[in-house]
Amino acid sequence: MTTELKNDTIIRALLREPVDRTPVWIMRQAGRYLPEYLKTRAEAGSFMNLCQTPELACEVTLQPLRRYQLDAAIVFSDILTIPDVMGMGLYFEEGQGPKFAKPITSSADIHKLPRPDVAESLAYVMDAVSMVRRELDGTVPLIGFSGSPWTLFTYMIEGGSSKTFAKSKKLIYQEPALAHMLLEKLADTVTDYLNMQIESGAQIVQIFDTWGGVLSDQAFRDFSLRYLDRIVSGLKRENEGRRVPVILFAKACNTQLEALAGTGCDGLGVDWTISLREARERVGQQVALQGNMDPAILLAEPEIIHREVGNTLSSFGHGEGHIFNLGHGITPDVKPEHLSTLIDSVRELSPAYHS
Amino acid sequence: MTTELKNDTIIRALLREPVDRTPVWIMRQAGRYLPEYLKTRAEAGSFMNLCQTPELACEVTLQPLRRYQLDAAIVFSDILTIPDVMGMGLYFEEGQGPKFAKPITSSADIHKLPRPDVAESLAYVMDAVSMVRRELDGTVPLIGFSGSPWTLFTYMIEGGSSKTFAKSKKLIYQEPALAHMLLEKLADTVTDYLNMQIESGAQIVQIFDTWGGVLSDQAFRDFSLRYLDRIVSGLKRENEGRRVPVILFAKACNTQLEALAGTGCDGLGVDWTISLREARERVGQQVALQGNMDPAILLAEPEIIHREVGNTLSSFGHGEGHIFNLGHGITPDVKPEHLSTLIDSVRELSPAYHS
Repeated sequence: MTTELKNDTIIRALLREPVDRTPVWIMRQAGRYLPEYLKTRAEAGSFMNLCQTPELACEVTLQPLRRYQLDAAIVFSDILTIPDVMGMGLYFEEGQGPKFAKPITSSADIHKLPRPDVAESLAYVMDAVSMVRRELDGTVPLIGFSGSPWTLFTYMIEGGSSKTFAKSKKLIYQEPALAHMLLEKLADTVTDYLNMQIESGAQIVQIFDTWGGVLSDQAFRDFSLRYLDRIVSGLKRENEGRRVPVILFAKACNTQLEALAGTGCDGLGVDWTISLREARERVGQQVALQGNMDPAILLAEPEIIHREVGNTLSSFGHGEGHIFNLGHGITPDVKPEHLSTLIDSVRELSPAYHS
Repeated sequence: MTTELKNDTIIRALLREPVDRTPVWIMRQAGRYLPEYLKTRAEAGSFMNLCQTPELACEVTLQPLRRYQLDAAIVFSDILTIPDVMGMGLYFEEGQGPKFAKPITSSADIHKLPRPDVAESLAYVMDAVSMVRRELDGTVPLIGFSGSPWTLFTYMIEGGSSKTFAKSKKLIYQEPALAHMLLEKLADTVTDYLNMQIESGAQIVQIFDTWGGVLSDQAFRDFSLRYLDRIVSGLKRENEGRRVPVILFAKACNTQLEALAGTGCDGLGVDWTISLREARERVGQQVALQGNMDPAILLAEPEIIHREVGNTLSSFGHGEGHIFNLGHGITPDVKPEHLSTLIDSVRELSPAYHS
């Protein structure tokens, strides 16, 4: 398993070590904007079958790396695998958000949720990780990931996606002890899950707190940050003789950057609503920053994309600690050649920012 | 028209003048959580008829003031009245977002949009404002409002609500000159509209930039802030021998607070994702702050609401310049008596913060 890593640019950037150019990967780089993804997705029948069949998950993970000069792969999976194996029965209906066969309808349902044995129940994810690592053969590192406890909590309590998060918020305000019990269970499960992914071959891990931004400042600290902190402290940070960097991406949580940096993570994902310049001023040399171009810019023509890549690089400025990415996932309506423009532009323009 | 104002607490708070207690009003205080609103809404037939019939708009504006000790009324209307009278034909279908009979489908459609004569085409809003002022008889001030140019732009370009704002963003990146032409027209129309409301009797005005938070830092400055600035500079700031304070509420734009304060407005609406303590540290004595309790707290029991009102007041701290409000509109699922608890709690707990 300890193959040599031919391109470790992203790992070095995450550790704020010198690099020749800014590394780049794209959230949802394996996704619906790619015709080859849609083909595999159709062959898989259901989205869950795509996630649960290691050969298919491996295939879609590798597809964007065949097209683009990306500096990392990210294992293809869904953030809701954990609630699924806690017994909620995750499923998707065409064109709709996630659903659960056994939604939570009472406090008793929450009490009954087990802490799952992820090595067993999520063996398909570990198999996909091992398979991708083998196929990558050291070309670029593999990123493992999980949803954050708070983000998983919202889907579990709302029974799917939500606009107002009314049930989740009512629960944290009205029954904080019960909410903490579930969040603690989720945090420990996420820790197990990420450690298993690291042991299976993930060389970087990212935690997505997609819905941290719906909380008040104080509620974020109490119900999301506390558990991110717990996970970061519990992760295996060295494997195969190499540091395993941890990236936290808490979308729409720009008021929390200093607090997130304080967890001991290596990198912070940043969305496009704050300039990298300001984010860097605020977190200093504590962590690397990943981001932050608005995905919608990929809908514009190539010359605009090229210019905005330049603006993003210039906003971070000279020096180490930048991983180029979008500020959120690439959307299905993007033309694949527009992503080529982005990646080529990062390769062309970024060396000037490194000495 | 120049009746004496018996309760000017909110105006004094907006001007950072001494008050005995923190004034309070609630965004969407005239709304679906109130049974009397639902009754009038049903009698009106359509939502547009409710907005366009001054007697009905006046009635629902006054309903929350009969129940609660609020420190302001806000005229009942919709933020999309301007696109409607620009010829787009606004309508609502039950349980759905806004729609336009004549959506924008080409650049030519944008070029053809007129700058409407709001005195004529939105006379029904001015009539409602005059009528509410008469009915209020100086008990509390009346707030007039408008959507911001950027927020109106998104609805017009998307043809309604949106999750990704892909069309609006593609337009600003791909055809910035065309976008600026429309935004300029909207800014001048909003200025006319608010000045007409002031002349008709509005004693405070608020501009809602509901969707500024979907833009990048730079795009916000170029395509939203610039036009907020233009409007604030063009408003009639004195009427009936009294200052007319201007409040800007740019939701999810907490990285922009300093820039928003720099427009010359009197107050800034703040959502719940930043603490009032931090917001106040950042804007200093430049503007008053309005907010910022999470509306979801009103779903919890009265003792929780009481505690969180206390936390919100304490977060702003001692001294002048706080207007209590939620961080966004009250939601239809709130029990009316829970809002009583909020307002009673502000009245009970806030005098301790004023000397």
